[in-house]
Amino acid sequence: MRKVAIGQAGGPTAVINASLAGVVEGLYGKCTIFPVLNGYQGLVERKYTEMNEGYYRWILQNADVPGACLGSGRFHFTPELMEQAVLGLKEKDIRTLIFIGGNGTMAALKKLEQIAEHIGYELQIIGIPKTVDNDLGETDHAPGFGSAARYITLSVRNIVKDLEAMRNFEQVRIIETMGRNAGWLALSSGFLRRREEDGPHHIYVPEEPVSQESFLEQIEETVKTNGTAVVVVSEGFRFSGEQPTEREVVKGRKVLGGVSLRMERMIREQTGYHVRAENLGMNQRSASFAVSSQDRKEAYEVGLQAALYVKQKKSSIMVNIQRKPTKCYNYIIGSTTLERVARSGEKTLPRRYLENLTEYYHWLEPILGDRIEPYPAKWRAALNG
Amino acid sequence: MRKVAIGQAGGPTAVINASLAGVVEGLYGKCTIFPVLNGYQGLVERKYTEMNEGYYRWILQNADVPGACLGSGRFHFTPELMEQAVLGLKEKDIRTLIFIGGNGTMAALKKLEQIAEHIGYELQIIGIPKTVDNDLGETDHAPGFGSAARYITLSVRNIVKDLEAMRNFEQVRIIETMGRNAGWLALSSGFLRRREEDGPHHIYVPEEPVSQESFLEQIEETVKTNGTAVVVVSEGFRFSGEQPTEREVVKGRKVLGGVSLRMERMIREQTGYHVRAENLGMNQRSASFAVSSQDRKEAYEVGLQAALYVKQKKSSIMVNIQRKPTKCYNYIIGSTTLERVARSGEKTLPRRYLENLTEYYHWLEPILGDRIEPYPAKWRAALNG
Repeated sequence: MRKVAIGQAGGPTAVINASLAGVVEGLYGKCTIFPVLNGYQGLVERKYTEMNEGYYRWILQNADVPGACLGSGRFHFTPELMEQAVLGLKEKDIRTLIFIGGNGTMAALKKLEQIAEHIGYELQIIGIPKTVDNDLGETDHAPGFGSAARYITLSVRNIVKDLEAMRNFEQVRIIETMGRNAGWLALSSGFLRRREEDGPHHIYVPEEPVSQESFLEQIEETVKTNGTAVVVVSEGFRFSGEQPTEREVVKGRKVLGGVSLRMERMIREQTGYHVRAENLGMNQRSASFAVSSQDRKEAYEVGLQAALYVKQKKSSIMVNIQRKPTKCYNYIIGSTTLERVARSGEKTLPRRYLENLTEYYHWLEPILGDRIEPYPAKWRAALNG
Repeated sequence: MRKVAIGQAGGPTAVINASLAGVVEGLYGKCTIFPVLNGYQGLVERKYTEMNEGYYRWILQNADVPGACLGSGRFHFTPELMEQAVLGLKEKDIRTLIFIGGNGTMAALKKLEQIAEHIGYELQIIGIPKTVDNDLGETDHAPGFGSAARYITLSVRNIVKDLEAMRNFEQVRIIETMGRNAGWLALSSGFLRRREEDGPHHIYVPEEPVSQESFLEQIEETVKTNGTAVVVVSEGFRFSGEQPTEREVVKGRKVLGGVSLRMERMIREQTGYHVRAENLGMNQRSASFAVSSQDRKEAYEVGLQAALYVKQKKSSIMVNIQRKPTKCYNYIIGSTTLERVARSGEKTLPRRYLENLTEYYHWLEPILGDRIEPYPAKWRAALNG
């Protein structure tokens, strides 16, 4: 039987294990599967053993568990280590390598392919898309994003209500979201906003820097007219002429974060409002209680499709989601080349969505899963109190 | 018809509007209801108008919305302002005052009663319990707590899986919870822990100060044996010989918070581990997606019971939840006096729960609502990777 190694890389999501379950279910009994532990590090260190039936059942049991049940993580993958990784596969005669991940994972797969070619080892390579940030190109969207967006949308809807209730004590909340250099997640937070007085009142994304002066003016204006202001900011947002706020650098990777705390200080010092910054944290990528049913379904499907491509001998590809131009949501699971994914780079919000939020939310809606509704409009008596 | 004023005070919860719906539904058509806006501030400023049918329907529509739909908030309630508040009620011949809140709210109700007595105005006073912190005495637990505990338990279960997946990149997560000076919420986070290697690995509560040395030793020991450590800390926790960490003081009220950031710095400086602090934030008290069905039910019931007490002419009481000593969860909605609530002060975790977690989780389970399960045990191959 063909030997297939499969691993998970990068930040976990609430549905990455559904993709793993999909590919494993599609291959089990037809190939010998080698689950790779701890992402690319495990690939280098040859942390893979043949999957038996118990292991198989355990992976299926974990399909709805957040995190990445094989271990994922980040790893500084040098060309030397890549060669070691390929040699490891060669030694065991593993002829297929599948990894679930985002931009970094796909770029590494591309390089592994070149190395295998270079040493004359025929290695089939397939990527399965995964990212909460949705910054992966050549796919309409990536599994993981829909659930994160759902969690953020619901959380912000709730926090708006919480702040409204506390309006005589607090005026401003700054909510920081994930997203790296793309504003997809932050912008999702406005999906349930229907009326001007509802929050979030301002959403700041990396694609549109704003000056410190405009920022403060916008907040003051909103507090004056509305009483409170709920602000959502993407971790990668930067004020005009500045760099994004960095939390720290770990193993050569910049970890963004902290812009909400900076905004908090600015508002406190410049306006005197009672303001509180809050980072939505790891629940964004692991909230089991706000998983999008559609996202969960698609995560499984891209995995299953990868298994199909193994049999079809397709290589150097990434499975993707292709939305059809129909009125109602319709898509096929297909593929693109790793070459094209690499060329497309980090996918940020297109201008048309930034200029037309309705269009963005129309695109977003089916990905969020089961219908979610805005809360009832404010009652005039309560509004004017 | 008897005139009844009803308000909400203190921090919102995910189910406080269910209590409001309960009392309003119990009274509508039998009394004239005056909803008070913005808590005690609105009582002083006479922000209450007779509720009409539209207002009534709107309150029922909001029963499952987090926040506090009348407006709640914090207010420095001086004796002079209390007298103004009572005179305002007298002017409109409002003979019943009901407030939904926690310790501070109940203490204020007690004082309002004394003032009314002093000026010879017969005022029926009823408190409805509400607090996510569960630090309110004379009730088995308070509505709002169960939902917050459920949210925390589920979040920590998920974040444990997220960190396990990232073990080659991050070693420690510190998760800060609400709770003020009581550890009920923080301790809830361990409810789904079944095996030693599962997280949370350490829970720090205000009732048990720990020295900085022991704290660091405990974390290092866990990372050495387990690879990662998930730590939960209550905002009111303090290291031995210190005071709780304060975020800021607003309108004379200490806002706790920041202990997780301090722990983060300590661990980073002393051990070099990659560590990340995270505050679970406002979702703890407003997560609509993790409401406990039992908590929601009880919140409504205490409201409805308050309406019954209006008719029975009971006064100077707080509605409470009395758990029966039966094997299966069983309770009655009854009442206690405001006097007894005031005397009992802030309710912290009893020794027996700190010494016997099983007993605590047995007590907690029914309050968390629909059954929640731990994730599957780790697979040996994945565990040793």
